[in-house]
Amino acid sequence: MAEPLTRTQLAHWRTFIESSWALHTRLEDELRAATGLSMNDYHVLVALAEAPEHRIRMGELASRLVLSPSRVTYQISSMIKRGLVRKESCSDDGRGQEAVLTPEGLTALRDAAPAHLETVRRSFIDHLDDEELAVIGRVFAKIRKV
Amino acid sequence: MAEPLTRTQLAHWRTFIESSWALHTRLEDELRAATGLSMNDYHVLVALAEAPEHRIRMGELASRLVLSPSRVTYQISSMIKRGLVRKESCSDDGRGQEAVLTPEGLTALRDAAPAHLETVRRSFIDHLDDEELAVIGRVFAKIRKV
Repeated sequence: MAEPLTRTQLAHWRTFIESSWALHTRLEDELRAATGLSMNDYHVLVALAEAPEHRIRMGELASRLVLSPSRVTYQISSMIKRGLVRKESCSDDGRGQEAVLTPEGLTALRDAAPAHLETVRRSFIDHLDDEELAVIGRVFAKIRKV
Repeated sequence: MAEPLTRTQLAHWRTFIESSWALHTRLEDELRAATGLSMNDYHVLVALAEAPEHRIRMGELASRLVLSPSRVTYQISSMIKRGLVRKESCSDDGRGQEAVLTPEGLTALRDAAPAHLETVRRSFIDHLDDEELAVIGRVFAKIRKV
């Protein structure tokens, strides 16, 4: 096992993990109260809305959202039940499956986005300068590949 | 409603929210698999272990962990059932209630900490330089007060 974390590392880590957890909780609570969508629902809808033909292979969706394959399967099943997404065989080779955005899913995203992004601004973006936001973007791009 | 987020703000935000959510999920999964504790359990145990006489008022615990009063009540009830914490009337004035760490709670924390902090190092700390970690600490200290 490597050497223990320093006091400074531990202090910054704790601030980050407690504060970011609270941020996730607040965003999730506000989004659910306003729209019935979870944050995972929202991120799947955004990913599909931006994809060519509004469809993404299940495996690629898992890696885009940094979710395990079993979590993505559970997530998409839940969204299918609510009519936000459907599953189809891959259009190019017929092997594997793709998640496809439904018109209802696109409407749900368009209805949810303005208020959600206003919460994001108020809870996070407005409190950071450009440099801080760039550092956050760079750090979390590294972390997601770990 | 304020002006929309810029393309750059939105890109950094998405990287952060997806990657930090994945980090939370991984830490929670590994901690639960190794110890049966959730991240909220762990953070309550840490807060109590560091408090004078291992006790904190419920309201103060909520604000320390940036949780709503109802979430803290639920969290502590769950930990009482598992013998990690008990609730007592406040020692100084008899009004209000305090969460108190049990010997079993302290043992659970001591058993869990080394492997959990090794996961924290491997998943996060090792990928940041000192300056990046300091920015993260500063930014999330601001955010938690929002």
